[in-house]
Formats: sequence, structure tokens, C-alpha cells
Amino acid sequence: MKQLTIILALLLFANVNAQTDQEVLKTIYTQSLTNGKSYQWLDYLSNSIGGRLSGSENAEKAVQYTKAELEKLGLDKVWLQPVMVPKWVRGDKEEAHFVTNSVINKVNICALGGSIATPQNGLTANVIEVKNFEELETLGVDKIKGKIVFYNRPMQADLIQTFMAYGGCVNQRYAGAMEAIKYGAVGVIVRSMNLRQDDLPHTGSMSYGDIPNSKHIPSAAISTNDADKLSEALKNDSDLQFYFKQNCEQFDDVLSYNVIGEITGTEFPNQFMVVGGHLDSWDLGDGSHDDGAGVVQSMDVLRLLKNSGIRPKHSIRVVLFMNEENGLRGGKKYAEDAKLKNETHVFALESDAGGFTPRGFSFDCSDANFEKVLSWKSLFEPYLIHYFEKGGSGADIGPLKTTSNVLAGLRPDSQRYFDHHHAANDTFDAVNKRELELGAATMTSLIYLFDTYGIDNIPEVNPIKD
Amino acid sequence: MKQLTIILALLLFANVNAQTDQEVLKTIYTQSLTNGKSYQWLDYLSNSIGGRLSGSENAEKAVQYTKAELEKLGLDKVWLQPVMVPKWVRGDKEEAHFVTNSVINKVNICALGGSIATPQNGLTANVIEVKNFEELETLGVDKIKGKIVFYNRPMQADLIQTFMAYGGCVNQRYAGAMEAIKYGAVGVIVRSMNLRQDDLPHTGSMSYGDIPNSKHIPSAAISTNDADKLSEALKNDSDLQFYFKQNCEQFDDVLSYNVIGEITGTEFPNQFMVVGGHLDSWDLGDGSHDDGAGVVQSMDVLRLLKNSGIRPKHSIRVVLFMNEENGLRGGKKYAEDAKLKNETHVFALESDAGGFTPRGFSFDCSDANFEKVLSWKSLFEPYLIHYFEKGGSGADIGPLKTTSNVLAGLRPDSQRYFDHHHAANDTFDAVNKRELELGAATMTSLIYLFDTYGIDNIPEVNPIKD
Repeated sequence: MKQLTIILALLLFANVNAQTDQEVLKTIYTQSLTNGKSYQWLDYLSNSIGGRLSGSENAEKAVQYTKAELEKLGLDKVWLQPVMVPKWVRGDKEEAHFVTNSVINKVNICALGGSIATPQNGLTANVIEVKNFEELETLGVDKIKGKIVFYNRPMQADLIQTFMAYGGCVNQRYAGAMEAIKYGAVGVIVRSMNLRQDDLPHTGSMSYGDIPNSKHIPSAAISTNDADKLSEALKNDSDLQFYFKQNCEQFDDVLSYNVIGEITGTEFPNQFMVVGGHLDSWDLGDGSHDDGAGVVQSMDVLRLLKNSGIRPKHSIRVVLFMNEENGLRGGKKYAEDAKLKNETHVFALESDAGGFTPRGFSFDCSDANFEKVLSWKSLFEPYLIHYFEKGGSGADIGPLKTTSNVLAGLRPDSQRYFDHHHAANDTFDAVNKRELELGAATMTSLIYLFDTYGIDNIPEVNPIKD
Repeated sequence: MKQLTIILALLLFANVNAQTDQEVLKTIYTQSLTNGKSYQWLDYLSNSIGGRLSGSENAEKAVQYTKAELEKLGLDKVWLQPVMVPKWVRGDKEEAHFVTNSVINKVNICALGGSIATPQNGLTANVIEVKNFEELETLGVDKIKGKIVFYNRPMQADLIQTFMAYGGCVNQRYAGAMEAIKYGAVGVIVRSMNLRQDDLPHTGSMSYGDIPNSKHIPSAAISTNDADKLSEALKNDSDLQFYFKQNCEQFDDVLSYNVIGEITGTEFPNQFMVVGGHLDSWDLGDGSHDDGAGVVQSMDVLRLLKNSGIRPKHSIRVVLFMNEENGLRGGKKYAEDAKLKNETHVFALESDAGGFTPRGFSFDCSDANFEKVLSWKSLFEPYLIHYFEKGGSGADIGPLKTTSNVLAGLRPDSQRYFDHHHAANDTFDAVNKRELELGAATMTSLIYLFDTYGIDNIPEVNPIKD
């Protein structure tokens, strides 16, 4: 009988707890959808500031704006963390064309981030089209020397998760020049990482690796429509001449900042849970999806926790990382400082996959912690959040990884993401208010659950109980 | 030992079957994403034809176009099913404003479908704002007589499924005039069914019920921004005058058609499975989401079945219903004819919730059939299709309901749907190619599974085996 009473009491307790979590999530989602701030912040960041490439005046404005907004939230601490970042400037002379049957075919082009400029009057050369580095190797110096290498492997349309398709293509952009230089190429153009056929070139970072400056060659992206046109034209005239001009420039590193706000934990103030996105963006659009969305959602997580009457046990930090796009300096700096200060980071969550309808999360963690996450699945069901898988988390929080902590990435619907990614149409009008707010609520809910139930296998560092 | 052998054989059989289904779904999705026709058809329907209100020239063009396209697919039969439909025409004189402090405030307005016109010079009257019919009753004739009733209950933002929010508001639009007439109102304006704040009025059907013509009053929708402005203005000046003008007109019914194509079943030719959407649309936009998307997805289901090498056992029909928006005549006609011909309809699927990323289906069926559906869940997981719930199906297929058959509705992500629904921005550019194609593949997969495994509890009508 006594045993039965205990069992009943436990069941009752479990039920009360479950109900409470349900109620908390309901409050969080309702707050975000009826009284969210994320969309308003994004409006300012996108329309009043604009694209925020590392080292630019806009990036500095974004630092000051988000710091000031965080200060209005009544957090326990708000501060800037200095970090040196690369400064690359696109310039204003981007143009390209190729000539077929005496007709000039204009090409929509943009320099890749980190590329050098062309000569002042542009670069004109024959084009050799390849799908991958293996083809490059097969062709060899004889067929490549003196030419522009044109990487034209499209994103794979039949992959359901578009980030997989991106992963299967992006080496053309990032390492295309590095590889082409080996065979004496004079320039690189790459098909934009875009699943759609349109006229927009998509930029993104590229690297020369260890190759000395004197051997660098200019690199640029062309639109998917132009990639198809050029490929078609090359079939009829493999000797056609391609011309492009860009006057981008790499400057010395400059001082910038990660923006950080904190609600100090009531029980475990020295155990940190981070939620963040990256404040820098590419320069062609206003960076609304990549990653203005992640920035304002992360800011709203702390506001929603406060507004929902949640006093977290762990210290919850919002970190707006600088320089994810072309250096990851902010992410590295934050992790280095955390290590220097011996800060235990038990959990980190990043939103950097667009402000679209959230579908769930992917996790980088132990099986035990993943089981814990799966036990919360039913709590998320009313919000149509169903995707809980092991996998990557986010670039900025990656350096925080230890053997025992939990990293997570918000996974929004990805179908439209690469239509906008790094292109001139990554703009505020492409973000839907409700989708953005659902993402913020979903992130807040996961932070709430990890704060409430902790993670497995972490020593309790300096717990203070009242 | 014999028993064990049987069990092992059964397990092996089950496994082989499961693998085959996986492969078939993979083929269907790959076909749709790499070789789909839905987007190309939608481009024509939206950009070359445009809005397709029942009884309009465009609706007739859409009938001829889709019939011709179905005829190219090599189906076993394609035909038109005659149906008389209402013909309502918007006219070209829509305008509205109200005056505060001698300032004219222009209002974005559109007549509701089925409404009468205002007098030729428009209608000017005081406004009484209400949130619901109960408030109307409380106010009574004294406070309402001679006024324009302004229904201003917003869609509820904290409901995750936006169709629930629509359901909670749409009686203002549909029955608003009917109710207001009882208290002597002279006109009705209604806040647009839109979760977003913007300047676009959203039309939709309204009804006068049994009220005689002589008592009808004009009804219109105003944009959400204007609804807020008007409500604010009324707080300062409850006597302000509202003016609106519209010259819409109801004509006699005209002849139109459902467009039908069929692949005749190899085993159960007299058991029918229907997949469809509605060919008519409202007139303000081009009806790309509502319901051009459902039309082209349904057409592609039959093409994808053929292209994937599937020879269905049941007869699969695509039905493009006419007049869902303001009469449902096509849906009713199809069901009536089916009954007259004693056709057994075992399954019907409708897509009429926009061309957004598919999340799953809702089902109107028995528990046994629903269990069968749930057993297929894991097959859909690789495609991020997770939503399988009991609930509504689709308006057009509703009349086909029997006690034993299965009706289903595709459930795409609904967050953006009411931004476009029945408004001038329901246009082709708001549809994403991949999202549309994923929907078509998801529908084809469900049809394939129901065709393969049948439904519970249906007598096999005239099976022919070779």
C-alpha cells in the first residue's frame, strides 16, 4: 500500500511537472507571437543599417545598436568582447561578359569574399568548364594554363535537406582558386550556390590557403542562369573569351566586437548556456536571413525568458558573434576567452539557417543527452516541431565543444534558404514575421528545458543554493 | 521449426515490401524535384491566364488549357464534366475613405464575392464597430439602424495552425451581412482575414442566406492596416462618416466544367481514387497558391505515377474542380454523378492549402484506416513529412464522404498562407518551385500507398484479375 502511494505520488509529481512545462511553452509561444520583438529589431538591422560585412561601418553600427537594445532589456550584464576581424571591401567595379557570334552576353557577377581584384582593365581569357577538382586534375596544366576555370557543378535538387546540397557544392567556391592555381589558371568563376534558376550572383568566402600572394588569381560567382548560358555557349565555341572586372581589396585586420548579454543563473551562475547568431553578414543584401534572423531571435530568447517569468538556474548568455562569414573570429574568440576564464559552457544553441518556419534542432552531444532531448518531443508537438536529430550545430558555437556539453542548431524549413543566401535578395521582405517568431519561441523553449533539467554528466561547478 | 520458418518468411516478405516502398518513394520525390511539371504548369495558369473566377473567360481558358495538358500525358481518359456555376463580377469602381478633422483617409477596399453593389454614387454612413455577432445583438436595432457595421475581430496570432485562426474569424465575412441586416444596417465592412499588417484587402465569399433581394446590403473587406486606422479614428470620433463605392454584379448561372483525367486500374477499375484541387480562384491575384498549386500538383500526381513506372491497381482520377470559392458546385456535381453512376470512391485527396513546404496530411476516416496510414509514417520521414492527424480533408472532396472511405487533405506549412489568401499578392512569385514539387511528390506517395495496400472495409467491386 505504501509502495502504491509512493508510485501514485510520483505519477502525480511527474504529471504536475509535465503540465507545468506545457504551460511554460504555451506562454513562451504566445508571448513571441503576440508580443515578440524579433521582427522589429530585424526591421532596424536590415532596413536602417543594412548589410554588415566584418570591418565595415555597418557592422560597427550593428554592434552599437544591438548592445543598446540588449541594455534596455534589464539583463544582469551586457558587454562588448573585442575581437580583431578581417576587412575585405568589394569595391564598385564588378562587371562581366562573354562574346559569341559578335554578340556581347552580359553576365551577372560578384567577387567572392577574400578574392583579389582583376587588373584595372579587367581580365579576359578562354574558359575551361569543370564539374569538380578531379576533372581539373585530369585536364592538367596543358589544358588549364592561362585560362579561367569555370566551376559549374549545380546543387543537387533531389536532396531534401538543402544544406546537404550546399555541402556537396561549396568546395568549388571555397577552394576553387586554390586548386585552379596549381594548374596555371588566371581566374576562377563559379556557378552560384543557388537551387533556383535566376539572375542573382551569390557571394561567399573563398581561400587561397598557403599560396603566396603573388600567385593569387581573382575569383567570382556568376548567376545560375548565366552559368547555364555560358555552358551552352562553350559547347558551340570552346574558344570564346570571357571578360570580368572587379576591384575588391583586402585591408589589415580591424577591431570589432562580439555583443554579449547575460541573465545570471540563480543556482549555477558559473554554468553557462549560450544562445546566439552572427551579427556580420555579406554585403549584397541586408543579411536578413543570414543571419539577422538568428541575431534577433537570440536576443528575444532572453527577453522572452524574462517576460515569461522564468528565472533561469544557469547563466544564460546571448552572444552575437562577429565575423562568421569570412573568418569565424568571433566564435573562436568567445571560446578562447571562456577557456581562459575557466567558464563551464554546458549548452550552446545557434540559429544560423534562416528565419523560416522552425522544424526542430540538430544536436552535437552524447547519447544520454540526446535521449533527454527526445523525452521532450511531445512538448514540442503542438508547435509542429518534430525534427530532433544528431548532426551539426552552428559554426560560431563549434569552438565551445567539449566531450560532455551539448551543442544544438535550430533547423528551420530550408527549401527557400539558398534562393537568398549571400545574394542581393537576402532582404527583410523575404522574412515572414510569424515564422521568425516561431523560431524565437522554439529556441526559448529548448533553453528553458535544458535550464530546468540540466544536462547529463556535467560536474556542478560552484552551485549556490539560497 | 515450421512455425519459425513461416515467421522468418513473413519477416523477409515484410522487409522486401518495405524496401520496395522506400525505393518507390525515392523515385517519386526525385522525379518531382528534378523533372517535375507542376511549376511550369503553374507559370502558365498564373502568368498567361491569371485569376480564374467561376464563370469568367479566364476560368474557361483554364478549363481548356488543363484539359489539353492532361491529354498530352497519355492517360486512359480525359474529359470535361459540365456544371452550372454562379457568375459574379467585381466591376471597376471600388473605392473608400473616411474623413477625420477634415482630412480624407483613403481606405484599401474590395467587394466581397456575392455582394451587391453600392448605389451608383457610393454609400456614406456612420460606422459601428463590433467584434462579433453577440456584440451586434447587445447593441440592437437602436444603435445599428442606418449604419455601416464594421467587423474587426482579428485572426488570433497565437494559434500555431493558421487555418484555426481563419476558422475563428471567417463568420464575420461570410455571415456578417446576414446578421447586420437583422438590425437595419445599410452596409458591412470587414477586417481582412490576414495575420499580417499590410494594405491589401482580402476578398472571399459572403452570403445573404434566405434574406430577400430587396433587403441586401453591400459588403466589402478593408485591409488590416486600414481596419486599425479606422478603429483608432472611431475612438476619437464615433460619428465619423465612412464612404465606399462598388459596382459588382451577380449574373445568371453559366455553364462551366470540372476537368477530369483517369488512369484506369489494372485490378479494381471500378474502385476510384481521386486527387484534386480547384481550378477556379478569386480575381484579385492570379490564384497561384489558392488553388493553382493544388491543380498543378494533382495533375503531376498522375504524370509522376506514370513516369515512376507505377501501374495502379485502382482507377486514379485527377479532378480539377470548378467553383470551390463561391458555390462548391463542381465538388457537388462530381459527387452527384459518381452516385448516379454507382461509382465506388474509396479514397480522395485534395490539395487546397497553398503550395508551401508539405508537412503531412489530415484524414477523415475510420480508426482502422488511420492506423494503416500511421504504419507508413517512417516511409515519409526522409522527406520531413511528419504530420498525420485526423481532421478535415478538402471542401471539393467533402461530398464524396461515405462511412467507409478515406478522405485526406495535404497540409503544407501554413504560416505564410493568409498573407496571400484571396488578395492581390496571391501570385506566382510567392510560390517556391521546390516547395510545390515536394507537395506533388508527397501526394503521389500517399496515392501510391493507398493504391498498393487498399483501404480497410471496402467491398471489392468487380475485381478483374488476369
